Amino acid sequence: MTSNPRVIFAQRPAPHEAPKVGKHLIFDESRTIDLERVPLNGGYLTKTLILSPEPAMRERMRDPSIPSYTTTYTVGGPILGFGVVVVLHSEKDGFKAGDYLYGLTVWEAYTVQPYVDGRVNFKPEEWAPGTFDMDSLALQVVPNPNGLYPLSKYTSIMGTPGLTAFVGMEGIIDGKEGETLFVSSGASAVGSMVIQLGKLKGMKVIASAGSDAKVEYMRSLGADLAFNYKKDNYTQFLQEHGPINAFWDNVGGEALDAALAAITSHGRMAICGTSGTDVLPPNEHYRLKNAYLIMKKCISIRGFIVPDLIPQYMSKFFEVVPALMAQGKLQSRETEIEGIENAPQAIVDTLASGHEKAGTLVVVVAKE
Amino acid sequence: MTSNPRVIFAQRPAPHEAPKVGKHLIFDESRTIDLERVPLNGGYLTKTLILSPEPAMRERMRDPSIPSYTTTYTVGGPILGFGVVVVLHSEKDGFKAGDYLYGLTVWEAYTVQPYVDGRVNFKPEEWAPGTFDMDSLALQVVPNPNGLYPLSKYTSIMGTPGLTAFVGMEGIIDGKEGETLFVSSGASAVGSMVIQLGKLKGMKVIASAGSDAKVEYMRSLGADLAFNYKKDNYTQFLQEHGPINAFWDNVGGEALDAALAAITSHGRMAICGTSGTDVLPPNEHYRLKNAYLIMKKCISIRGFIVPDLIPQYMSKFFEVVPALMAQGKLQSRETEIEGIENAPQAIVDTLASGHEKAGTLVVVVAKE
Repeated sequence: MTSNPRVIFAQRPAPHEAPKVGKHLIFDESRTIDLERVPLNGGYLTKTLILSPEPAMRERMRDPSIPSYTTTYTVGGPILGFGVVVVLHSEKDGFKAGDYLYGLTVWEAYTVQPYVDGRVNFKPEEWAPGTFDMDSLALQVVPNPNGLYPLSKYTSIMGTPGLTAFVGMEGIIDGKEGETLFVSSGASAVGSMVIQLGKLKGMKVIASAGSDAKVEYMRSLGADLAFNYKKDNYTQFLQEHGPINAFWDNVGGEALDAALAAITSHGRMAICGTSGTDVLPPNEHYRLKNAYLIMKKCISIRGFIVPDLIPQYMSKFFEVVPALMAQGKLQSRETEIEGIENAPQAIVDTLASGHEKAGTLVVVVAKE
Repeated sequence: MTSNPRVIFAQRPAPHEAPKVGKHLIFDESRTIDLERVPLNGGYLTKTLILSPEPAMRERMRDPSIPSYTTTYTVGGPILGFGVVVVLHSEKDGFKAGDYLYGLTVWEAYTVQPYVDGRVNFKPEEWAPGTFDMDSLALQVVPNPNGLYPLSKYTSIMGTPGLTAFVGMEGIIDGKEGETLFVSSGASAVGSMVIQLGKLKGMKVIASAGSDAKVEYMRSLGADLAFNYKKDNYTQFLQEHGPINAFWDNVGGEALDAALAAITSHGRMAICGTSGTDVLPPNEHYRLKNAYLIMKKCISIRGFIVPDLIPQYMSKFFEVVPALMAQGKLQSRETEIEGIENAPQAIVDTLASGHEKAGTLVVVVAKE
């Protein structure tokens, strides 16, 4: 028998409470698995290689009675999230031993797939209209990189963050050469892709983040102007270096208000995240003063999640992005955290933007 | 010689100051005109019949150094705005005596057209990018109603308010049968059209306004639920009677915040006016607390002015709207103010929503 450690979702944090290791997220080493004899029931057994903590996981921790764009986690069940796994045994057509897969998986060392533990039995009528069944983002076979690039690129450039940035830049920002784009949280997995895709369109890119190391990282990705919002005020910086034609928002609050003030007539805004307000109780949220400018400047604003834009832009993503990565025109920096025992803390750090280092956290569970 | 009274823009109100009669807007009776001998210089002489005070006129009173969607008025020049005029003499092809015209004109009794007084010599490079040259909305010949409908319909259903509502409903709201639409300021010229166009699409319509007479008027136009926001709180009313799928905003501030809370996933918002904040200094603006829901609910928000959507929907407007009016399926109520001497007060009342009566104010300058 082999140890099969996992991360358990033990308790829901209160709205706007930051989840804590040992209280909401528990590392559980009690389980074992027989890798040769576990019944596959027509499925396949995977070994987890890489797990990707992402800001959207916080939304799945909320109480299911609060409407939002995604289904929730089940208390007592395992954490689910994006990862790269390798197939050990398979009884299912289309999946064979040695295949690499990327998609939603259980945060544990070994899993019989398609996973059942923690999965929501999705009945649309039990959820607010428009709620997305996150478990539908099933594992997909991805090419073996054969050493050309690390597997972690499947969780960044070629994974959900890269796809999010790509479809939003194509479908909402639609940047033109010479225009100016402002990206908040530009050192995040999504933000760092947005900076580079903006530069590839010939845009001038302004980017913000919360540490000097991240500012340096954003410059290295091509940002023309990068600033630390803890030192430079959003409004003043954009007033001095704007105007902007488009805004990619991962933060909300003050960044959005400053962008409303700095954007030109008929500007476009892609609203991809609200990390600035998610961690605060509603009465401490920054309250927007510039919303009246939406009309005065004929601004278009669109909140979105990836599935909204997948039908139009998914095939273009696979056509364009791997080639750009191969040519070195799209880069990403991952900070590797060794061991699944550190996954709970990696989630907490990602949600709190607590780490000041540049580069997205990824958890390396096994080296194959 | 015939008296040619006019309304003069004497002074710019401070930002967010309500304009006042006698200070910012002055009625001037000092001028005369020789209706038979005035030189036409290849143009044509018009007699003003109806003038339409509209909320957007406030934006033209601002200091031109403040960027916005429209060019400004010239201090000391006449007020310009939408009106219906009739041609008395013409030297210009396409315009003959007896023709009725609708469009932008000088707020005076008689005008040699195309007007020069008060017109901005528009050089795009002197204005913020995207500023619209309002004077380009030149007078157009409209059919003689021959008694079938009053001329004032050219300033309401068949004029800019009707066109605004029509193109925004087609291009942004795109309502489906069974959906719920919320309209703020639903008794305004634009709002009253939105209610009716929503009902024609099979939508359930919720509408708000600031007096009981207006609530009654909105119900008479077909609104399923109408409320007086001075008695019923926006948030509570929508919480009780929502959710909504779409929002048409003429007001901003609290109405917009309540709509963000009440709208469903992937809801659409057309932002057409900000009458709730225009009259207040920025430090008294209502500050939005629900902006973070733009992302959580994947909401699309679009601020717009009519010229943005004219290319796609103008011809459909002329195809559809006059016929709907003739069939009695689109109605409007105008409150007629007699005499151009009352035009300054009519502008002030329209901007302040000071009149509690249902129906849009129109100034009847002459009965032909």
